[in-house]
Amino acid sequence: MSTLNLTLLTDLYEMTMMQGYFKTGNRDVAVFDAFYRTNPCDGGYAVCAGLDQMIDYIKNLHFDEEDISYLRSLSIFDEDFLTYLSNFKFSGDIYAIPEGTLIFPREPLVKVVAPIMEAQLIETAVLNIINHQSLIATKAARVCYAAQGDGVMEFGLRRAQGPDSGTYGARAAVIGGCKGTSNVLAGQMFDVPVLGTHAHSWIMSFPDEYTAFKKYAKLYPSACILLVDTYDTLKSGMPNAIKVFKEMRDAGIPLTYYGIRMDSGDLAYLSKKVRKMLDDAGFPDAVISASNDLDEYLIESLKIQGATITSWGVGTNLITSKDNPAFGGVYKLAAIQNEAGEFIPKIKLSENVEKVTNPGNKNVYRIYDKETGKIKADLICLVGEVFDESKDMKLFDPNAPWKKTTLPGGSYTLRELLVPVFQKGECVYESPSVMDIQRYCTREKDTIWDETKRFVNPQEIYVDLSDKLYEMKTALLNKEHM
Amino acid sequence: MSTLNLTLLTDLYEMTMMQGYFKTGNRDVAVFDAFYRTNPCDGGYAVCAGLDQMIDYIKNLHFDEEDISYLRSLSIFDEDFLTYLSNFKFSGDIYAIPEGTLIFPREPLVKVVAPIMEAQLIETAVLNIINHQSLIATKAARVCYAAQGDGVMEFGLRRAQGPDSGTYGARAAVIGGCKGTSNVLAGQMFDVPVLGTHAHSWIMSFPDEYTAFKKYAKLYPSACILLVDTYDTLKSGMPNAIKVFKEMRDAGIPLTYYGIRMDSGDLAYLSKKVRKMLDDAGFPDAVISASNDLDEYLIESLKIQGATITSWGVGTNLITSKDNPAFGGVYKLAAIQNEAGEFIPKIKLSENVEKVTNPGNKNVYRIYDKETGKIKADLICLVGEVFDESKDMKLFDPNAPWKKTTLPGGSYTLRELLVPVFQKGECVYESPSVMDIQRYCTREKDTIWDETKRFVNPQEIYVDLSDKLYEMKTALLNKEHM
Repeated sequence: MSTLNLTLLTDLYEMTMMQGYFKTGNRDVAVFDAFYRTNPCDGGYAVCAGLDQMIDYIKNLHFDEEDISYLRSLSIFDEDFLTYLSNFKFSGDIYAIPEGTLIFPREPLVKVVAPIMEAQLIETAVLNIINHQSLIATKAARVCYAAQGDGVMEFGLRRAQGPDSGTYGARAAVIGGCKGTSNVLAGQMFDVPVLGTHAHSWIMSFPDEYTAFKKYAKLYPSACILLVDTYDTLKSGMPNAIKVFKEMRDAGIPLTYYGIRMDSGDLAYLSKKVRKMLDDAGFPDAVISASNDLDEYLIESLKIQGATITSWGVGTNLITSKDNPAFGGVYKLAAIQNEAGEFIPKIKLSENVEKVTNPGNKNVYRIYDKETGKIKADLICLVGEVFDESKDMKLFDPNAPWKKTTLPGGSYTLRELLVPVFQKGECVYESPSVMDIQRYCTREKDTIWDETKRFVNPQEIYVDLSDKLYEMKTALLNKEHM
Repeated sequence: MSTLNLTLLTDLYEMTMMQGYFKTGNRDVAVFDAFYRTNPCDGGYAVCAGLDQMIDYIKNLHFDEEDISYLRSLSIFDEDFLTYLSNFKFSGDIYAIPEGTLIFPREPLVKVVAPIMEAQLIETAVLNIINHQSLIATKAARVCYAAQGDGVMEFGLRRAQGPDSGTYGARAAVIGGCKGTSNVLAGQMFDVPVLGTHAHSWIMSFPDEYTAFKKYAKLYPSACILLVDTYDTLKSGMPNAIKVFKEMRDAGIPLTYYGIRMDSGDLAYLSKKVRKMLDDAGFPDAVISASNDLDEYLIESLKIQGATITSWGVGTNLITSKDNPAFGGVYKLAAIQNEAGEFIPKIKLSENVEKVTNPGNKNVYRIYDKETGKIKADLICLVGEVFDESKDMKLFDPNAPWKKTTLPGGSYTLRELLVPVFQKGECVYESPSVMDIQRYCTREKDTIWDETKRFVNPQEIYVDLSDKLYEMKTALLNKEHM
């Protein structure tokens, strides 16, 4: 990005509305919720990410002189409004679900409580950042699940949708479970492992493949992964690689991290042949890594076929979330504070029942089964509602209220998901390091069963509404739809 | 992006290879081609874009102290190499096809002729930038083609894959034909039109829809597009909008640019109803704009159904190129210069015939039919080959060499597509403004027939090889595949 000031990273209509509120004297405090409606890739969950960049964005919000003169040049904005903008500072409260947390449809991931002008301005950038990183973190979690504990490397920078997409995408991929990234800038910015060896061009720049391997092994003996498919994997690449490994062994060079990489061909078939060649030559600990348009479905299939790959380089399909390249998060008005300080709930109707919003100033609780530590359900309620873990809790499906269940008191625990991030415009939250977020996310993934992680028809985690919220919503719907 | 220095925006393996070349004393000049293999969305063409950002990237390439100490911290790089990097400056030549040009598979879009160390370093960022913007420019051209001359607005920032993706994506969308973008930062950075009105939250923040419309019309009478689907398009939104337009007319306020926007529902059905309501009320020139998960296929379908929409807001599906979110450009070694200054061709084999690269230091010519101005074919040849437009030209399909055609001398014209961008590390190219590129791209689109623009099974534009290049390639293939 050729600017570090992202204040104008917003849709024009946010600014025309903002001026509208300014001109009509509307200084009301509003509640906006950012949430999403369906899990990416028809999955059973998502992983939220991007909060740290959202915090940076809010902290740095300011209209500098260039911004003001650009806005003036549009002939849409009046001088009194531009003067207001030149002194602008975000003054509201923001709550968010911490990065790396598993999330489910319709629950607020970010809640903004701020004068409506300010809340409106930040809509676009908040969604942009949270949508992107949550998408890639989710995709990474899926790919890592398919890899069953093998290392997954993020290799997609060249196919990412621009520099940020590659770099913040790498950050999100590491949060979701990737061992590291090929992207050096992401390594520098987020202190995450960077990985990689050489390309076909390295091989082709030498008179022959053996010389290219030998030179590489001499330069990088302690991380010696040789790309064997430039000419012919089984007839040329493998014999040359094994020759080099033998020479290293004979010369007493410790073979600590070594092996081969394949970037083409039938990876199931080739990996088995390659494993046998390596084992027969006395290299049972040689790594077999593979790349080439991999995704969670292909990795799952390769595993089923008995592929012997132990290290996966995933590029395009991860960094763009190719089969589902948008997260679909939205940002909706939920309430406006009146002069008495009460939050008056607001609802957005829609022909489509699932698009009707949840009104009011809300909280989200996660309900865990005490015995297994797994998630039983999430519960959206109104701020101020109190639940007692020692008492029975009745839950019902808000889309089919006759479907009810009761959790016996003492059998469950509750956790509030939204944490304060900004209070009166000041940041009150410190983001963990990316690797700490990754570790947290690993624990998060343990809170759902395989039935929810599987790729086809996963078991849904219910996001229920409290009685109070459900009643309020129903009353509003009845009032609006006369 | 929280840094303006993109020097480390590269894959780690580029740097390990670079150190390899440094350590082995390889200072050879290499030729690398960036090209792509298949048109996005199974289309008949692509639009190249991103060159201006690629130029910025090359111009600003430098390893600052922070970069060097980060690289040192990885314990992979030796001090002599780090010293070399700290004095690094790109010293090579780059040729590229100008932005907004129609392009076809397998022809070099960017050709880098530089010491192999330097050419290798820039691979990842060059691909990242060109891949992203060419993808979105192509998608935008497709969407605009479906809209048949109606205005198309880029509205996707909130769903883009990060800030850059939204902003450079907006730039590319305008190159591809979009009238403007909602993204204010893109407007500021690239001097392109910014557009937009208001959201559902504006309506919901007022006691009723009519008041919200009235306030908006008072604030923005000269660009008054009212969003009519917050409660009920036909029963509430339209009557309220028409009431406001009538009041404006009665008050003598000129209705210059005004109308309605719909963001949900059956757009074909609703737009016809809405058109009739507006016409009956005496507002035949009111704009009907629509958004809601549109893409080229939906717009084409709506047109066929007789939808009366005249202005299209396209978000997610354009900014992510949702059905095809990666361009697939690659960057391959084509030749290495020997001590005599000759370029020794290099070829990358593959099991997949289409993945075999075109060797040598090459040029690309576009062959136009003199009478119609339409493209007959593109021709990849070796640098130094000369063609005489007054003489017959024989063309053949390189994948099926028996398929031949002859263009009579005088019936065609030739144009060299690659232009010099860097010479000996100095930029020798000045990018046109984005709006000028858009105008150029509009003329470019006139050089292909509808048969190539259609979405299903488009007519292919052949990219042929010169006899000389074909013979060289065949000889290399025969030599390698013994």
